[in-house]
Amino acid sequence: MSTAPSTVHPAARSGARPRLLINAFLMNTTSHIMGGQWRRQEAQQHRFNELQLWTDLARQLEQARFDTLFFADVVGLYGDYDGGWASHVRQGLQVPANDPLVLLSALAGSTREIGLAATSSIIQSHPFHFARQISTLDHLSGGRVAWNIVTSALENAHRNFGADGLAEHDQRYEWAEEYLDAVYKLWEGSWDGGALLQDKDTGIHADPQKVHKIHHRGPRYSIEGPHLSSPSPQRTPVLFQAGSSPRGQQFCARHAEGTFTLLPHPQAAAEYTQRVRTLAEQEGRSGADLKFVQGFHIITGSTEAEVQRRVADLDSTIDVHALLAHIGGGIGVDFGGLDPDTPLADLQTQGSQGHLESVRRFAGTQDPTLRDFALFRTRANQLAGTPEQIADRLELWQDAGIDGINLINHTIPGSYTEFIDGVLPELRRRGLAQTEYAPGTLREKLTGTGPDDGRLLPASHPAARFRGAFADVPVG
Amino acid sequence: MSTAPSTVHPAARSGARPRLLINAFLMNTTSHIMGGQWRRQEAQQHRFNELQLWTDLARQLEQARFDTLFFADVVGLYGDYDGGWASHVRQGLQVPANDPLVLLSALAGSTREIGLAATSSIIQSHPFHFARQISTLDHLSGGRVAWNIVTSALENAHRNFGADGLAEHDQRYEWAEEYLDAVYKLWEGSWDGGALLQDKDTGIHADPQKVHKIHHRGPRYSIEGPHLSSPSPQRTPVLFQAGSSPRGQQFCARHAEGTFTLLPHPQAAAEYTQRVRTLAEQEGRSGADLKFVQGFHIITGSTEAEVQRRVADLDSTIDVHALLAHIGGGIGVDFGGLDPDTPLADLQTQGSQGHLESVRRFAGTQDPTLRDFALFRTRANQLAGTPEQIADRLELWQDAGIDGINLINHTIPGSYTEFIDGVLPELRRRGLAQTEYAPGTLREKLTGTGPDDGRLLPASHPAARFRGAFADVPVG
Repeated sequence: MSTAPSTVHPAARSGARPRLLINAFLMNTTSHIMGGQWRRQEAQQHRFNELQLWTDLARQLEQARFDTLFFADVVGLYGDYDGGWASHVRQGLQVPANDPLVLLSALAGSTREIGLAATSSIIQSHPFHFARQISTLDHLSGGRVAWNIVTSALENAHRNFGADGLAEHDQRYEWAEEYLDAVYKLWEGSWDGGALLQDKDTGIHADPQKVHKIHHRGPRYSIEGPHLSSPSPQRTPVLFQAGSSPRGQQFCARHAEGTFTLLPHPQAAAEYTQRVRTLAEQEGRSGADLKFVQGFHIITGSTEAEVQRRVADLDSTIDVHALLAHIGGGIGVDFGGLDPDTPLADLQTQGSQGHLESVRRFAGTQDPTLRDFALFRTRANQLAGTPEQIADRLELWQDAGIDGINLINHTIPGSYTEFIDGVLPELRRRGLAQTEYAPGTLREKLTGTGPDDGRLLPASHPAARFRGAFADVPVG
Repeated sequence: MSTAPSTVHPAARSGARPRLLINAFLMNTTSHIMGGQWRRQEAQQHRFNELQLWTDLARQLEQARFDTLFFADVVGLYGDYDGGWASHVRQGLQVPANDPLVLLSALAGSTREIGLAATSSIIQSHPFHFARQISTLDHLSGGRVAWNIVTSALENAHRNFGADGLAEHDQRYEWAEEYLDAVYKLWEGSWDGGALLQDKDTGIHADPQKVHKIHHRGPRYSIEGPHLSSPSPQRTPVLFQAGSSPRGQQFCARHAEGTFTLLPHPQAAAEYTQRVRTLAEQEGRSGADLKFVQGFHIITGSTEAEVQRRVADLDSTIDVHALLAHIGGGIGVDFGGLDPDTPLADLQTQGSQGHLESVRRFAGTQDPTLRDFALFRTRANQLAGTPEQIADRLELWQDAGIDGINLINHTIPGSYTEFIDGVLPELRRRGLAQTEYAPGTLREKLTGTGPDDGRLLPASHPAARFRGAFADVPVG
């Protein structure tokens, strides 16, 4: 990279502006967010069942020094569209969708530095089993695992795991609190530091005085322990979360090291990041320990005219029905029976007035249609412009408290190639993007602070209270 | 390979003798079976937390045309030794032990042909989640997944997953029957053939008329579906099992395509394979659809004297306490408080007369000690000899109905290198070992029969009854 003074941004030159975290926002499915774009000729995301697609992408992103492969997930169908789920299947809307943890495990061997972030819901995997799968991958990857904690808001997901329907929202967060306590106990408390000796001379493989059962007993789980994996490089993986409800923000402030946002504009980001950081401080943590990562899809070109042509081209293939199914499924409204040209004002009878009010507010025009709404929602997370314009915008978001971006794709690998070739050089010129990975684990790469050079969670994190907590449990 | 007539075994030349299946019997831990051998200077199994150990081994075994990496597993501690579990930790006896499915996923990218067999217990992973993880890996690996079905006989394992203790033996098999029904429904019945279209022109990603919810309702599980993965190359993975109790044999005869045995001699194998194959025929299957894979550790040398020196050398480092902990943990007897030189005849007071009787029978000497017992148990699965002697012995086992071997290791990679360099050439000369992989999925490689060229389970298998079973479930 050139670092000639004339091309270095003043803020970067003065050291005032930190780099952005840059994640690829992915899902092990054909149609994640940008409905319909899989049909484009250059799009390869329909090959999601093939390891080669992901290996090639992971190597490309690692070569560009992305921070993580951040895999979203659902463990059930979205809410109804057109009265059912047939259209989800027809459009490939997050179904079929494969397990992200298995895919990230398969990518651990073909990458060396990039973070491996898997979404996993508390409803899908027992904490004893989940903790062990994560520890295994953290070992095999040299400490590159992150976990995006979700509680599953989709009814079908809960019915896949034995429930009659969705658990009540705040109850899910109570459940999540117990789940986290259980895995924290296994990751942080079950094995003391220095337990694993593997001494061939004495024959002592591990010191039994430093390995503890956890005897967890809670409303949902009863877990004896000990954890079956020895401490992995990070012990607890880097923790992501995305809850934006009041209860979700509280949970985030308490547990998350990174949070994924889809905020409409920098002003909203300034307010949101400030509020959640204050909550984190009330939990005894540092606000700086919580990184905000905003989702964007980025469209660029060397001139504004070229950018406009590119936006129009991508708009021409986007599927409004798929967008509406995704948005409606997320907020519990079935937009399916409606013509996309229906004026929003006519949707009074949907019985979801609260949602529709926000729809109108988002659209911000006198007489917006459902199509306007779908496109506007998508547009809200679009950054389109020349590399300089995009970098300027990202600096505004950074000034509003955002630490990084989760790069949404129209096409795989096209959207990433476009960003890497078009935007990344400008970000590097300004010091906004790393040119080499920092050494160490993912946590060290992201924060560089905390015990053991940042490998482990800081002492202020709630997981840390289980360190040494079982030292008095008699060893059998 | 030379195929000159003078070096070809008569049976192979006539085509009468089929090749043996050759698996590596592994566990993601330091000390799997041969207690103490991790202390040997050349042993590398203590590096089990490192991906590089396994990648190197997998490539070596694939180069030698092994059929599968067969990973054993436990999800809890073995039963007490010396009144507790401290000695397990001290000796590294299957603790720590990492998740095999995550490891095999990590190996999917660095291998191309070898089978990936993971043990997974019905108690550790919800069938909806498990089915999806397996389908994901079967996709990513091009159809190379096998599942070794276990029900967990260790009390601590059950206490790690919410139970107060071990479920009763036959109850565990009832549970397993429901678990299998649930995953068969997802793998075989939820997606019809031809459902996935991915047609960029029409925009139809999948045909909703060919994707079905399963609405499973049973004593333990309630699962709505549909399966979130589209059909993987094998749909249902190759099914292994190892139950030797009467109920276990029945389960095996009904479900297994491969079964893992540790029989004491070929006569026992002839009786056992005949009995279980007859049971399979009573279930409407072909006896030939069930492959028996016998566990062996193999020690070789170019002369008998060299073999004897090698056996003595390995014996000198084996840890009798670790062997006794492993054997006792498996049969529910704590040998830990006893001097290994205790005569077996003095063990009347242990209250496990049935087990001790079998101990005496195995040992087969007038006044055997506990040490004799431990070594004898280990010796029963040892093949030591020149390559020709070993090949002769394997032919006797094959004549007794055994289809292949599960190669137990003293050291990793040493035991495999010893087999590959020493024994494999002789097996190949006799046509007992493949020199190239057959094309296709693992099931095709192992059997070469069944629908779709052997990719799928045959129609006589109980999983097949769910094909098309949900075609009438209305699509939402």
